[in-house]
Amino acid sequence: MAYELHYWPGIQGRGEFIRLALEEAGAAYVDVGRQRDGKHRGMTKVMALLEGAAMPAFALPVLVDGEQVVGQVAAILDHLGAKHGLTPPDAAGRTRALQLQLTLADLTTEGHDVHHPLGAGLYYEQQREAALQRAPGFQEERLPKFLAYFERVLERNPAGPRYLLGGQLTYPDLSLFQLVEWLRYAFPRAAREALRSTPRVRALHARVRRRPRIAAYLKSPRRLPFSEEDVFRHYPELDSPARQTRP
Amino acid sequence: MAYELHYWPGIQGRGEFIRLALEEAGAAYVDVGRQRDGKHRGMTKVMALLEGAAMPAFALPVLVDGEQVVGQVAAILDHLGAKHGLTPPDAAGRTRALQLQLTLADLTTEGHDVHHPLGAGLYYEQQREAALQRAPGFQEERLPKFLAYFERVLERNPAGPRYLLGGQLTYPDLSLFQLVEWLRYAFPRAAREALRSTPRVRALHARVRRRPRIAAYLKSPRRLPFSEEDVFRHYPELDSPARQTRP
Repeated sequence: MAYELHYWPGIQGRGEFIRLALEEAGAAYVDVGRQRDGKHRGMTKVMALLEGAAMPAFALPVLVDGEQVVGQVAAILDHLGAKHGLTPPDAAGRTRALQLQLTLADLTTEGHDVHHPLGAGLYYEQQREAALQRAPGFQEERLPKFLAYFERVLERNPAGPRYLLGGQLTYPDLSLFQLVEWLRYAFPRAAREALRSTPRVRALHARVRRRPRIAAYLKSPRRLPFSEEDVFRHYPELDSPARQTRP
Repeated sequence: MAYELHYWPGIQGRGEFIRLALEEAGAAYVDVGRQRDGKHRGMTKVMALLEGAAMPAFALPVLVDGEQVVGQVAAILDHLGAKHGLTPPDAAGRTRALQLQLTLADLTTEGHDVHHPLGAGLYYEQQREAALQRAPGFQEERLPKFLAYFERVLERNPAGPRYLLGGQLTYPDLSLFQLVEWLRYAFPRAAREALRSTPRVRALHARVRRRPRIAAYLKSPRRLPFSEEDVFRHYPELDSPARQTRP
């Protein structure tokens, strides 16, 4: 039975971490929110799942796997990874994959909060001044620190620097690929600067991009475009050299 | 061999989620950062682990379990929970515990970001105006929404509303206890208001507090006090009725 991915229809968003894993696994899935059997029908189903009586998850994405309904990106990936060989087979490796994914989740949240420092209840335009104040810390400190960490993880992998864990692709590799995609879109200047010192991260990104199923997915209409409604957004003023925007 | 918990010495912080699990499990552990064999010796060891050549984790807390070194709270709890009977024994239950923990982690981050909306690189006093703008959304929307979610999880537990998962305590129960502790400390007005509608969450908090090992821990010097250097901080101006502070 095909998996059901329940997520917002118009953006890559955090659902993209799940899509990449499903695509790499070659798994059959329905992206429920994007189904078009009548007006908004897909999203009605998504909201019914999320806000219905069972209320299985606090937020999207949610994966339905037969009887099992799972929320939270890292929990979904841990579940899918074990089923499709996208985690190391041993318990310690599985824990390590989860740890790496959670660190990528932290980077995702920080990347989002650059443009929404005052919370999701206000539009960007209502918090632009605060965003201008938050951006330099992300670009100068946090982003380079995160990328340097993953560079080090690759560098110290006993099986070589091709993947984050062992000698085979695991789901955090797919997520790190997505982060590089987002960072280059949203913060082209800061990302270029930070990635200059992390050749192994750049090479991993390129390696994932060339995988046949991922390459086919990226060319397909299933891959949604980047946008300013996504988790990572390109507002040029937030990618400026820090000294011009620090308060 | 005793576990080593590597964390900042002066605060409960995210390390507290790990301490509560270790205490409930009755597991032997060394809180390395708080060891006092000479000046700052414990914290020197912690930083050597975190910033040394192996650099196993991006941030604290880190748990050392023999050869295995684990970072990220939810990954540590998933590991400890499986070893000490603090997760459901089946795979689906283990995934569900992880999902609940990650939702508690999101609440933790949002609670922190109320006082640090512009990032960790600035002091509270430097971002107080932004914090005053962020606080109402947390109190009026996010906090009630999170607590209502956990209330619903308790309400719909087929085994009854005593615990989040099944008929026995699991690690997310301990973490929800800690969140209630923090919320009551940091946002006494908003927490009282939100908890009024979530009697099962209140009862779970009281139930965890009465568990013999947790009760003993809370009375011991191992339990650090709340403070304004912690993840949740009590700044009275951030707990004011929303209409007075919204921009």
